Amino acid sequence: MKINTAVNNDDLDSHLLATASLENLYRIFTVPEAPNSTLGGIDNEISANLMGFLTDRIVAREKSLLAIEQDFSDSRVPEIPQFVSDYTDFVMKKLVAHSVHTAAPGFIGHMATPLPYFMLPLSRIMVALNQNLVKIETSKAFTPLERQVLGMLHNLVYECDDAFYQENLHNARRALGTFCSGGTTANITALWVARNQMLGANDTFKGLATEGLPSALAHYGYKDIAILVSERGHYSLGKAVDVLGIGRKNLIAIDTDAKSKIDLVKLRQTCAELQESNIGIMAIVGIAGGTETGHVDPLEEMSDIATQVGAHFHVDAAWGGPTLLSNTHKSVLKGIEYADSVTIDAHKQLYVPQGAGMVIFKNPSMLGAVEHHAEYILRAGSKDLGQYSIEGSRPGMAMLVHAAFHIIGRSGYEILIDQNIDKARAFASMIDQHSEFELITDPELNILNYRYVPADIQKMLRSGDYKQQFNINEKLDRITKRMQKQQRAAGKTFVSRTRFSQFKYGGMPVSVFRVVLANPMTTLETLRSILVEQIKLAEREGTQAILTEIRAQL
Amino acid sequence: MKINTAVNNDDLDSHLLATASLENLYRIFTVPEAPNSTLGGIDNEISANLMGFLTDRIVAREKSLLAIEQDFSDSRVPEIPQFVSDYTDFVMKKLVAHSVHTAAPGFIGHMATPLPYFMLPLSRIMVALNQNLVKIETSKAFTPLERQVLGMLHNLVYECDDAFYQENLHNARRALGTFCSGGTTANITALWVARNQMLGANDTFKGLATEGLPSALAHYGYKDIAILVSERGHYSLGKAVDVLGIGRKNLIAIDTDAKSKIDLVKLRQTCAELQESNIGIMAIVGIAGGTETGHVDPLEEMSDIATQVGAHFHVDAAWGGPTLLSNTHKSVLKGIEYADSVTIDAHKQLYVPQGAGMVIFKNPSMLGAVEHHAEYILRAGSKDLGQYSIEGSRPGMAMLVHAAFHIIGRSGYEILIDQNIDKARAFASMIDQHSEFELITDPELNILNYRYVPADIQKMLRSGDYKQQFNINEKLDRITKRMQKQQRAAGKTFVSRTRFSQFKYGGMPVSVFRVVLANPMTTLETLRSILVEQIKLAEREGTQAILTEIRAQL
Repeated sequence: MKINTAVNNDDLDSHLLATASLENLYRIFTVPEAPNSTLGGIDNEISANLMGFLTDRIVAREKSLLAIEQDFSDSRVPEIPQFVSDYTDFVMKKLVAHSVHTAAPGFIGHMATPLPYFMLPLSRIMVALNQNLVKIETSKAFTPLERQVLGMLHNLVYECDDAFYQENLHNARRALGTFCSGGTTANITALWVARNQMLGANDTFKGLATEGLPSALAHYGYKDIAILVSERGHYSLGKAVDVLGIGRKNLIAIDTDAKSKIDLVKLRQTCAELQESNIGIMAIVGIAGGTETGHVDPLEEMSDIATQVGAHFHVDAAWGGPTLLSNTHKSVLKGIEYADSVTIDAHKQLYVPQGAGMVIFKNPSMLGAVEHHAEYILRAGSKDLGQYSIEGSRPGMAMLVHAAFHIIGRSGYEILIDQNIDKARAFASMIDQHSEFELITDPELNILNYRYVPADIQKMLRSGDYKQQFNINEKLDRITKRMQKQQRAAGKTFVSRTRFSQFKYGGMPVSVFRVVLANPMTTLETLRSILVEQIKLAEREGTQAILTEIRAQL
Repeated sequence: MKINTAVNNDDLDSHLLATASLENLYRIFTVPEAPNSTLGGIDNEISANLMGFLTDRIVAREKSLLAIEQDFSDSRVPEIPQFVSDYTDFVMKKLVAHSVHTAAPGFIGHMATPLPYFMLPLSRIMVALNQNLVKIETSKAFTPLERQVLGMLHNLVYECDDAFYQENLHNARRALGTFCSGGTTANITALWVARNQMLGANDTFKGLATEGLPSALAHYGYKDIAILVSERGHYSLGKAVDVLGIGRKNLIAIDTDAKSKIDLVKLRQTCAELQESNIGIMAIVGIAGGTETGHVDPLEEMSDIATQVGAHFHVDAAWGGPTLLSNTHKSVLKGIEYADSVTIDAHKQLYVPQGAGMVIFKNPSMLGAVEHHAEYILRAGSKDLGQYSIEGSRPGMAMLVHAAFHIIGRSGYEILIDQNIDKARAFASMIDQHSEFELITDPELNILNYRYVPADIQKMLRSGDYKQQFNINEKLDRITKRMQKQQRAAGKTFVSRTRFSQFKYGGMPVSVFRVVLANPMTTLETLRSILVEQIKLAEREGTQAILTEIRAQL
């Protein structure tokens, strides 16, 4: 009889760990959790009703972080093993109960998507196999699978012909991209490649990878190198230029227009200025699905500029990339096919669990710029994926992308994506028609921004001069922050909040609610209820006091 | 009745996906996989008998990679959704069957460890919650949990007093470490911090993170900066100096002694030479559990040298770190408590699934050197973990480390670690006593190297001069490679192979078998059978022909 975990059952205690003996340790590797044990029960509960589990087990009302920290305050590795059942009780009460129901239809504040049911058993297969994708010797069939997934993404973006994929998909000396834990490492990888490619080996110079950035600048005669992106660029790009030794001052933010898109005139002008100052333009980064606004940059024109100045053109499509799966909307990303590299996250709009990002490269030789080898694995000429990745050991997450592509299919994704965009537009018009909200960004994809501003104050803003607008916006910012925190604390629904420059207020940064619509279970009714809740929050004393202050300015 | 997947059952087909309709897509998010479906069945099979699943479902005999690639050769995202059951059949036959049974007792070639049973349901909880640890708004209680796990590791290494942990564990302005997807990103993070710390802001200089490495060198007046590690350093360090813009030529490999430990005389000498050449010594890296040999560097002495030259002292304990959990063996890592930063992987000797690395910092302010913020998350003063991580979005893997610490306990880990080391010693003496094998490294921890060399050829090697040794070793290398490939292809057992300089052969690099003993199910009988299999492989024609060649040299 195989029994491992059970609650407070003396007869079964001998089967549990709770004392460190070789025999007990051997058991945790060989004796399964019984289905009727505490942990087995939770496992079945999730399998039978994921949404029910999340809804019932996560408490809605926010517990203070300080209080939660009390349960995670011991800094010693426990000496004595704990019964699995006791630990499970702890996890359910102290961890699960106070985690975030990111799959709730009303949780529309971040790029968190719910998971299709099939992800659960497939994730179990992945965990059970525990492959390490760094090398074929610990991953075997997972290696061609990952290369195929990267090829599918490449095809989605670049639509090369069959001969191209036949030649490159499984070619040991080529790589169509690399898997990453997420969009940040994907962006870092793209810029790492761009940097090494720009300042590569020539003549007697062995290349930046060997000689370092200072020697490379000296050799190529640049004063510095720069990366250009709009002011809406994701913060990972700042991290990338820091990590890569380029420096944050060399990540140059270009102004945006009324639609949050990069100002092409200013981009061209800045390129010219940099060239005059002998600063090499390493890369231009286009945004396809801005983190805060969901907008898409004019990729085609940016690619032309990048070509003119000889820069690598990277597109950060971590969010928006999957839009290419929709025939209805893929034209929004027009020009992405000219990118030298593209970041796409699978744990966002591909509905895969956390930990799956990708960067693909148009030219399958380009990742050679960051190739590395070792003696015990990743030997030159091998097909080990670790040769081209910033990470070393990695799980087989590509399997879940592969599964989603097959089980949902392109036509399935199209429906999901179209729905999300339709919903965003419907919500935008709901906000726009509401007298107490100001729509800040009209959604190009499925992200939008707005804030609470009663009609009379909207009028004040429209008619006011810059200084008056500044004073009003400063107070409205306080309201936005208050309301967002109160809504989060109430735990029924969640929008996030951000702050960015507003074209219509002369570039003044303003705090706004941020909404990301990617949950198929979010209905128009959910969205309506979010506005209703916010109207109620606005009635609270604190907010009313600030409104009175604003009105007193008249 | 909730039914989603079933094989070829017309009555149930309407419940399956296989056509992209909004209703069908809604179902994959709301209707669970039935326990009697194909995928539900596999799920239960794994839960009931993980080892059986791995043993039965993975075919032992190697299928050629070329043949496997055929099953993953379509580069288009499938247009039409596939039934979950059909996809599951594909996965079982084409992916699972040809993956690697890394948890097999005879798979002792890589740092792959089997998983305790409780990891399966706990991983399901983690996946189901799908938290994103980059920020509190998408992870809540997971944030203090992760900080606690990092604190436990910090405590394990540095043993600071309770007041220290009370002050720092949950302090928004401090970080005891950061979670990473693995040891590679952990090592990169440590060196990123060291680099930014060394060349930080002073006077009017805004620091390397802002100004970039070339300006930083100019400001500080260094010709270059260097990182020193023994020639046994992990390849991720080469990747790190490339990524960080420092350049691979500035990662300086120091010779090792007969026990694979760094030569302290040469380390001191190289430091002096670098200082004379005005090359700043950014970091000295000690190894605690060499990837290839399992050795531990003289950490205490290295720390003294690092202090003398003002360098950051990093210890790569990705493999060996958990040895600190054994009171019997922790003294092997003496001096690790002087490290400024330490890398430890949880997906190695902590028996956690792939994707869990950590780097901890002695000084809880040090990670400030790479701190970054954004407007929508990671605001200054928040407790968002993403402020200090090289990655952005990340899964809640810390939960599995937390679980393992509680369920196995320090005393449980001690038994596992002691067993592994005992087993390595027993295997070493088995090899040493065998007339046809040459033990290359006597294990300090639980990794060892050896090769197949019949007694008479061992004698030839001992008595030969350098040139003769070179000729023999070159031929033995061919044998080692052949045998390792043949053994892998046979699929019964697996040792890996590497190549490194041999002190006893005057620094000549030699190919060897590499064995990592961390699977509690590996018995002495397993190890004996591996040698038996190798003896049989050695009888094959190709190997015999090379042996004849060697003997002809006499």
